[in-house]
Amino acid sequence: MTKYLITGFSGFVSRHFLNFLESLNEKVSVCGLDLNEPDFDIKSFKWVVCEFKALDLLQKEEVDNIIYSYQPTHILHLASYSSVAFSWKNPRASFANNTNIFLNLIEQVRQIGIKCKILSVGSSEEYGNVTKENLPLKEEMQLFPVSPYAVARVSQEMLSKVYVDGYGMDIVLTRSFNHIGPYQKEIFVVPSFAKQLCQIKKENGPYNMVTGNLNIIRDFVDVRDVVKAYFMLLHHGKKGEVYNICSGTGTSLQNLVDVMSDYLGISVTCQTNPELVRPSDNQIIIGSNAKLSQDVGWQPAISIEQSLKDIVEYWKSKV
Amino acid sequence: MTKYLITGFSGFVSRHFLNFLESLNEKVSVCGLDLNEPDFDIKSFKWVVCEFKALDLLQKEEVDNIIYSYQPTHILHLASYSSVAFSWKNPRASFANNTNIFLNLIEQVRQIGIKCKILSVGSSEEYGNVTKENLPLKEEMQLFPVSPYAVARVSQEMLSKVYVDGYGMDIVLTRSFNHIGPYQKEIFVVPSFAKQLCQIKKENGPYNMVTGNLNIIRDFVDVRDVVKAYFMLLHHGKKGEVYNICSGTGTSLQNLVDVMSDYLGISVTCQTNPELVRPSDNQIIIGSNAKLSQDVGWQPAISIEQSLKDIVEYWKSKV
Repeated sequence: MTKYLITGFSGFVSRHFLNFLESLNEKVSVCGLDLNEPDFDIKSFKWVVCEFKALDLLQKEEVDNIIYSYQPTHILHLASYSSVAFSWKNPRASFANNTNIFLNLIEQVRQIGIKCKILSVGSSEEYGNVTKENLPLKEEMQLFPVSPYAVARVSQEMLSKVYVDGYGMDIVLTRSFNHIGPYQKEIFVVPSFAKQLCQIKKENGPYNMVTGNLNIIRDFVDVRDVVKAYFMLLHHGKKGEVYNICSGTGTSLQNLVDVMSDYLGISVTCQTNPELVRPSDNQIIIGSNAKLSQDVGWQPAISIEQSLKDIVEYWKSKV
Repeated sequence: MTKYLITGFSGFVSRHFLNFLESLNEKVSVCGLDLNEPDFDIKSFKWVVCEFKALDLLQKEEVDNIIYSYQPTHILHLASYSSVAFSWKNPRASFANNTNIFLNLIEQVRQIGIKCKILSVGSSEEYGNVTKENLPLKEEMQLFPVSPYAVARVSQEMLSKVYVDGYGMDIVLTRSFNHIGPYQKEIFVVPSFAKQLCQIKKENGPYNMVTGNLNIIRDFVDVRDVVKAYFMLLHHGKKGEVYNICSGTGTSLQNLVDVMSDYLGISVTCQTNPELVRPSDNQIIIGSNAKLSQDVGWQPAISIEQSLKDIVEYWKSKV
């Protein structure tokens, strides 16, 4: 039986990955690790047999024991301090909880010598400041990480490659772009907008919203497409290779607000809060998913309109 | 008064740096940190007022307290687990004792906000596997680190750049090539050869030596030239810039053996031990020192012949 070890188990990506596994109608085992208890019922699945362990991945001995006793066939490493803003305030914690926890994991797999395919999840942040001429971003481009978080991710990627080339381990890498979908926490921009718009709709106003720079263009990809890519890479990705996970198209934040407002049948005025505008932010980020498409046959299946509709429905049920 | 904090204080590079400071006939203060006590007399200097603290740089609180109380104007960060071979056996320890210790240092300087220029010492290993067409290696080249040690050094470099660009800190970076000179430990190739040759000379044979691949060509630079570069960069290096420290010329290991044998007036037969040949080693590494020369006016002053002569004299007095 396939045995997945999932770190960052209680997050929204993991939750969608479990739903995807369940949809395959095949019995699999999952051992989930996270600092926090999941807020979904791990006993609700028919096909996915879940166990959960609350754990700090910096506690190497505990991690070692779990890997040794569970003997995973696949590791989906989602755990991350993924906030760029947090990394500027706490660079050490960001580095430790991205790079060092990853090194702890792969080092134990190496030392006990189990056969195990590992997905190392990275970020589009690794590209750093890019010019429009370089779009869409391709995997072979030189990386210029500009935040502590991005450096931590590039370090993780370089370590992965050394473990593949030097020790023969089976690690596949991603650079994942902005993923969106139901269950995502409102500290992120899209759920934050969705929640505010649902509140405005429910309370009949006031019809205005405070935002950052809405002209920014990002490559948004639905989390359900992302977890499908993770599954495909965990089974068919080429070891040592890095794959962009992105839609290949750009959407402005203004456009997101417009689509969600339209769907709710409201119209809102947006006011820019300069404190929410990050001067070093790239104006536009779009990736190429050609490599992922070519190597494992992945294509995004969920349109941005469908994503936003599902996100709005999710928040309508929450506010 | 200039106050230097030197990590890796008990190593041979630090010892030469202290000698260089002493030669300037100007009073300076030095606080040295190292796991091990120095095997030289720190009270022997006239101009350099030294104190030493035995310390593990992973003990962040202790490091923090020392930086806070000493308030250095300059940090020369020499501490490193610099062996590539060790890093393959202990990737976690290598990473922690290169990247994490460096992050501990710069984070404390950032947090307490002292004005302090930092030299982040890196390695030619960062370039990774290079082709002859890429020689001499220039700083702007893309890096392909191929060992855990090299990854740790590139991570350190990326962190430095983020601390310069994001926090405005004053960090200058090096990629230091193979440095040689008296006091270097015999775990390195040149002192190992020198010691063996001096023993052969003293004991009148047997006139053979076991070695690795002698055809390998490296860019050797005298440690006394290196510490001069460190001093110049600590005072005049441009922040955020990385500088090769190298001679700009290549010498084969066979040539080193020949020069030292000639100087000793002996002739030895070298036998290759396949275990000492590392298959992934680059055949030839030569760097360009044009940037260092242009920005701070550094030029290597000690010829390879003079270096080897001094090294042989050092080992003659030891065996």
